[in-house]
Amino acid sequence: MKVAIIGIGLTKFDEHWDKNLRELAIEAGTKAIEDAGIRGRDLNAMYIGNMSAGRFIGQEHVAALVSGELGLSIPAVRVEGACASGGLALREGVFSILSGQNDIVLVGGAEKMTDIMPDYVTTTLMGAADQEWEAYYGLTFPSLYAMIARRHMFEFGTTREQMAKVAVKNHHNGCMNPIAQFQNEITIKDVINSTMVADPLTLLDCSPITDGAAAVILCKAELAKKYTDTPVYIIGTGQASDTLALHDRRSLTTLDATVKAAQMAYKQAGITVKDVSLAEVHDCFTIAEIVATEDLGFCKKGDGGKLLDEGVTEIGGKIPVNTSGGLKAVGHPVGATGIKQAAEIVMQLKGEAGKRQVKDAKIGLTHNVGGSGATAVVHIFSR
Amino acid sequence: MKVAIIGIGLTKFDEHWDKNLRELAIEAGTKAIEDAGIRGRDLNAMYIGNMSAGRFIGQEHVAALVSGELGLSIPAVRVEGACASGGLALREGVFSILSGQNDIVLVGGAEKMTDIMPDYVTTTLMGAADQEWEAYYGLTFPSLYAMIARRHMFEFGTTREQMAKVAVKNHHNGCMNPIAQFQNEITIKDVINSTMVADPLTLLDCSPITDGAAAVILCKAELAKKYTDTPVYIIGTGQASDTLALHDRRSLTTLDATVKAAQMAYKQAGITVKDVSLAEVHDCFTIAEIVATEDLGFCKKGDGGKLLDEGVTEIGGKIPVNTSGGLKAVGHPVGATGIKQAAEIVMQLKGEAGKRQVKDAKIGLTHNVGGSGATAVVHIFSR
Repeated sequence: MKVAIIGIGLTKFDEHWDKNLRELAIEAGTKAIEDAGIRGRDLNAMYIGNMSAGRFIGQEHVAALVSGELGLSIPAVRVEGACASGGLALREGVFSILSGQNDIVLVGGAEKMTDIMPDYVTTTLMGAADQEWEAYYGLTFPSLYAMIARRHMFEFGTTREQMAKVAVKNHHNGCMNPIAQFQNEITIKDVINSTMVADPLTLLDCSPITDGAAAVILCKAELAKKYTDTPVYIIGTGQASDTLALHDRRSLTTLDATVKAAQMAYKQAGITVKDVSLAEVHDCFTIAEIVATEDLGFCKKGDGGKLLDEGVTEIGGKIPVNTSGGLKAVGHPVGATGIKQAAEIVMQLKGEAGKRQVKDAKIGLTHNVGGSGATAVVHIFSR
Repeated sequence: MKVAIIGIGLTKFDEHWDKNLRELAIEAGTKAIEDAGIRGRDLNAMYIGNMSAGRFIGQEHVAALVSGELGLSIPAVRVEGACASGGLALREGVFSILSGQNDIVLVGGAEKMTDIMPDYVTTTLMGAADQEWEAYYGLTFPSLYAMIARRHMFEFGTTREQMAKVAVKNHHNGCMNPIAQFQNEITIKDVINSTMVADPLTLLDCSPITDGAAAVILCKAELAKKYTDTPVYIIGTGQASDTLALHDRRSLTTLDATVKAAQMAYKQAGITVKDVSLAEVHDCFTIAEIVATEDLGFCKKGDGGKLLDEGVTEIGGKIPVNTSGGLKAVGHPVGATGIKQAAEIVMQLKGEAGKRQVKDAKIGLTHNVGGSGATAVVHIFSR
């Protein structure tokens, strides 16, 4: 299995008070089209990852909206799997090319989150969890992940400082990424002393509310060299599901969907975790990155905190994680995140990641999660 | 191109005050699994068409919700294209099989619309139209289609009675369909004298607010005979887009997206419109069926009204349209409609449609529209 990426496009991830969803999506899409050196009319189809435009801005049907705004009449499909919407859209785009039905496909992700009150953003995001068994009882996403964090601390001795180190590392990386919402260094002390959100998670353990869009141009592998000398290939895709409600799961400290999606993707790519040069993982909260690095096999279960102590996941470490700055520092416009992750890996594998470049990056991985782990999607990329 | 359907499942389409979205989806999914004679664990993936659960019931991430409730951990993807969500989910399911990644896939559609106030349903449905250029100015879907109707009357002399005949025919067909929300005969007079909604459309020109779910089991064509002696095959799929806003279009009386999607599907199936034995088309309003029969090529542009005068689209006519009762009589749980259409065609092609059976049905067509025509998807089925 092999599908090429021949172009990428990103807006700044930020609070965009002067731009609406369609403008953000068009900006990212147009940049990707230009980067690929194609024209809009070369596209056979469009997939858009978006979690909740219906509630954020009253607008469903956003794929047709974007396609229409670009002056195209191609098949346009919105794909949704909560915060994994971008990753799922990428996977559907890949399938549509493998099916033989399409040659060149735009896959985008976009979310406009700041047009409603912040407390209603929290309510809207709880649409990713189980309404009837979680939301109605007052749970929020920070509190769901706080329970995961507490249990992880109890079972494996993970420390408050180790969690804080995720935020410190990702802010450091974000300082080198021009699209990042936050480009400021922070310290462990800053994280621990920031406003309490859901014990033990403080404000700086949480990814922010963000507007933004990202896009990639997929191309049938056999045609890629026609458009670029340096295509990046998707060589593995995996996806799995779990119950929406956290209490229905076997474990609080392992996301089984991540484990299964990763196994599927590694197998399809014909690689093992040892081959992975770098990864963008779903750090919606600091604890989520620790759990993800374990579930993806970067270390054994419970050792995620140690990876941070040892610098393994820093740029320059054995397996850099979230070189972009992750959801924490780049920001998390939910539907866009999965595509932003892919764009970061493409830049890294092409050697175009500037100051945050990972040396000799050959194989990259993206890991995108919906809700508290009911959806996980993993992609493997190679030069 | 050939993908088999080996099982179908439908809930009653109705106001289900005692069932929530997950129960409806599980009921349809379980029936389809049983109908196919498979077990849940035989499924490789699941696609769910749903338009607006986020606004109707506060719940996004519905594909993982359904998969989790079924005790499965397979890839689960929600697909959205407004009222065409079901049709788009079917198409993505087809692609996933053609891609070689999946052998057996459940494709469902579900919507729970009655949990919120009816006036908010109208607001929510306007999420399918352009928020910034249509909804904010007070347009509703009945008024959008009323403008199409007025223009069609002006350009082609289509009469009020011809529109009413769509509702009369579809109610008649619905009387023979046990899942239909309305199983009562109505007259042209009833339609014309019912409450005015948006001139010239009255209450009985409009599809109702409905809860319901539908599912089909897709199977790689080569494997289908292992599960059933009478598979039905999808032999063509087409999709196209247009601007969300009606005023940006070339014409009010032709849905270009339907024309393009149909051409794509006919070509892929290797058939012409003359080969079509029967069709389920998107009659969200009576005028929509008239426009659809023209755009699909069942008659020339402007003659859609005459098809009704001449009985061409009745059961027993040359090309029966909406034998199920259509959106008008069966009801229109928006995300479920596209899959219900496919299930009706499967029943007809297998000769299992009871009193509403079309004699010697060989090739069936489904036509599912999002919004006022920004998305259209057409599938062709054969025995």
